[in-house]
This record gives sequence, C-alpha cells and structure tokens, in this order.
Amino acid sequence: MNITVIGTGMVGRTLAARLAGLGHQVVIATRNVSATMSRTEPDAMGTPPYAQWAAEHPEVRLLPHAEAGDFAELFINASNGANSLRPLDLIGRERMAGKVLIDAALPLDLSEGMPPTLTVANTDSLGEQIQRAFPETKVVKTLNTVFCEVMVNPERIPGNHTLFIAGDDAEAKQTAREILHSFGWPEARIIDLGGITGARGSEMYMRLYFQLAQLLGTFDLNIEVHRAN
Amino acid sequence: MNITVIGTGMVGRTLAARLAGLGHQVVIATRNVSATMSRTEPDAMGTPPYAQWAAEHPEVRLLPHAEAGDFAELFINASNGANSLRPLDLIGRERMAGKVLIDAALPLDLSEGMPPTLTVANTDSLGEQIQRAFPETKVVKTLNTVFCEVMVNPERIPGNHTLFIAGDDAEAKQTAREILHSFGWPEARIIDLGGITGARGSEMYMRLYFQLAQLLGTFDLNIEVHRAN
Repeated sequence: MNITVIGTGMVGRTLAARLAGLGHQVVIATRNVSATMSRTEPDAMGTPPYAQWAAEHPEVRLLPHAEAGDFAELFINASNGANSLRPLDLIGRERMAGKVLIDAALPLDLSEGMPPTLTVANTDSLGEQIQRAFPETKVVKTLNTVFCEVMVNPERIPGNHTLFIAGDDAEAKQTAREILHSFGWPEARIIDLGGITGARGSEMYMRLYFQLAQLLGTFDLNIEVHRAN
Repeated sequence: MNITVIGTGMVGRTLAARLAGLGHQVVIATRNVSATMSRTEPDAMGTPPYAQWAAEHPEVRLLPHAEAGDFAELFINASNGANSLRPLDLIGRERMAGKVLIDAALPLDLSEGMPPTLTVANTDSLGEQIQRAFPETKVVKTLNTVFCEVMVNPERIPGNHTLFIAGDDAEAKQTAREILHSFGWPEARIIDLGGITGARGSEMYMRLYFQLAQLLGTFDLNIEVHRAN
C-alpha cells in the first residue's frame, strides 16, 4: 500500500520505518524537503536531525505535502496535534478526499511542561476537528494512547493491554485494523469506541497517561480494560 | 471512626452501608432531613427513595449538614460533582478545617445524555476546586474512577485493576489508603498520582470510562496499568 506519514518527528519516523519493514511503500510529508534535510540540531523533543535518520532509512522518501498527498492511498497523521490542521491543509482537501486517514496525533499543550494539558478537550477532540475539516476523508482515531514504540510493537509491554479505535466509516476502521494487526495488535485487544466522537475519550485519557509516565519514569505503559464476568 | 458521607444518592448510600458494616459510626448529610425522608419517588438516576433505604440501614443516621459536620472525623464527598461546593459550603469551612475529605465525586454534565462531558476539565478539576475552596481541609481524590459497588468491593471485577489516589497531604492519603484497604483494595493496586492536581488525570479518564460503560453495557469495569519490565 502507498502510505504517507504526516510528521517528521519521532512518531512519524517510527511508524514509517515499521510500515516500510512490512513491505509498504512509505513517504513522509514535509513542508520544505531541503529545510528538513539541512537541520543539524535535535528538535525540541530531543529527536536527532531528520537527515541522520533518513540516511539509515533510505527506503522512506521525504516529499513535499502536495506530492506526498498525490502518492498516498492511506494517510497517517503523526504530526504535532496542537497544529495538525496546518499540514493537512497543505496536502489539501481534494488530495485527501475518499481516502483513509489514521489520526495518531495528540493535541498537547506543553507550554506549562509535563504533564501537558490538551489544546482541545471535553466538548470536542482533534479527531472530530479533522473529520469536520475534511468531510470527504475517512478519519480513524487510533494508536494515540500509546508511545510510538508500543504502537508498532505492543509486545514491549506485558499483559492484554488495549488499543482503542474510533471513526465514522466502518470500512476505514477495517483498513486501520489490518494495519494494527500487522503491527502485532490482536483483534481481541482492539476496542471499537464507535464513531469519531469516541476520539474524545481516548484523547482525554492522555492526561492520566502522561501523569503515569512521569510517575513511573517511562512512556512504556498501557492500560488493560477489565470487566465483571 | 466517625464518618460523614455527603450525598444521599446511590454512591453515598453504598459507601455509608459498607463503612457501617466495617464498624464505623456513619452519618449521611442532607440539607433537610424531613424533605429527604418524605420523598416517595425514585430520583433522576432511578435510585429508590431514601426512606426505603434508611429503613433497611437503621445504623446510618441522616443529619443536617451542620450537625453532620460537627460529628465527622472524616468526610467522604459522594455528592453530585457538578454542584459539590454547595453541600460543602453548608457544612462550612470551620467544621471541615483540619479534617480529611475523601472526594469520590465526578463533575459530570449529563445534559446531553451519555456519555457525559465534564463541568470542569483539562486546566482544573473538582478535586483542585474543593482543595482551593477549603484550604484547611485535607482533600484526597480517590474512588472516583469506579462504579460505587466496585469502590467498596473490588473483587466484583477480575484482574489486578487499579485505583488512583491524589492529594497534597501525605498523612491524609495514608488515612484514605486505610479505608481503601478495608474495602479490599490491596496497596499494590493503589497508584499515588501525587498532589491534588493529579485529580485532573483521574477525572478526565472518566470520559473514556463512560464510553466503555455504554459500549460494554456495564459500569462494572476498570483498568489495569501495565508497564514494560
């Protein structure tokens, strides 16, 4: 499958490398290819310069948003969720129309440090915002509740921990599920939260997640849902 | 211990009955005792009239807020979290000063039905609001992430599922922990989220909880936190 990952940071790179390893044709979208390639300093999150990663992953091409949009059969949003509508606008509504977009992004406000607050919460969510802004795109919110290394390799954490999925289009959710299965998430551990409004629950949970990450000193954590028999 | 439970609904009754069964002297606080006792219809949540429950639980006394406040060594807030400051104001800052208040309430806005939104979220929480309004009271946020029957009987749900606790006063958290232990929560399953700001994470998780409850058709659910070894 031709997959375009939006986001040149750690999450985008981790997803892109894993998808390429699974045999997909993978592109990462950026505003300005030469600017991204010429950075020599780690980013604000301490992620090494893109060019260094690109040299180790020649199978993943870096393209400007428009070309990356034309290439895609499937999009994965791994951009900074506080500003995700910006790169999506650069790809453009028409290039995204009719296609599936897996939204793995988090609308984090880190201006006060850790744990972050959310730039959108409670009465709305990033997943819903993207779906409203791109009504012809089939938005599926998933992967957002775990660290990127866990997204693509759930066995990093023991136990029957859970991944959530939400979206209005059943076929698009099935496409997303197949990607999740290929990452190692068994069907029994994927909980379908219904329509895209379900993104609100999985995004709002992130406050607790970041508190736990800070407390336990690791992002390698996830939750398992138990219920009475 | 002399314990005053604030809230005549299902949560307050369940906590009061369990605490009385454990040998505590338990009082439930209400604005107007005769009005509460004379209701003959179920409340908005379908909970049977208080008088019916009171007849089955003569060991739990119903008192007006002021008297219930004088009686208390420990408070448990099980009132409607969207309006919890009101009954607490009726008890009064002086009667609550120096005492522990376990805040089990949720600031739910159910005006749009299920799943609810929160009346306070993201940049504040009910636990923090109560602590700010009653600075001499030692507020401990806990029990709020599970259904009331699970609060007092965690074995209803299989698995090593987790309870969260947050509060600024270490001694008050220890008092709360002893109550939790007596309900059946082992120390290893209680996660300390730090100061009262930690209430934000456990309250914001409730959106996901109510989505799951709706989806699974039961409130008898809880989460277990797994981490990489």
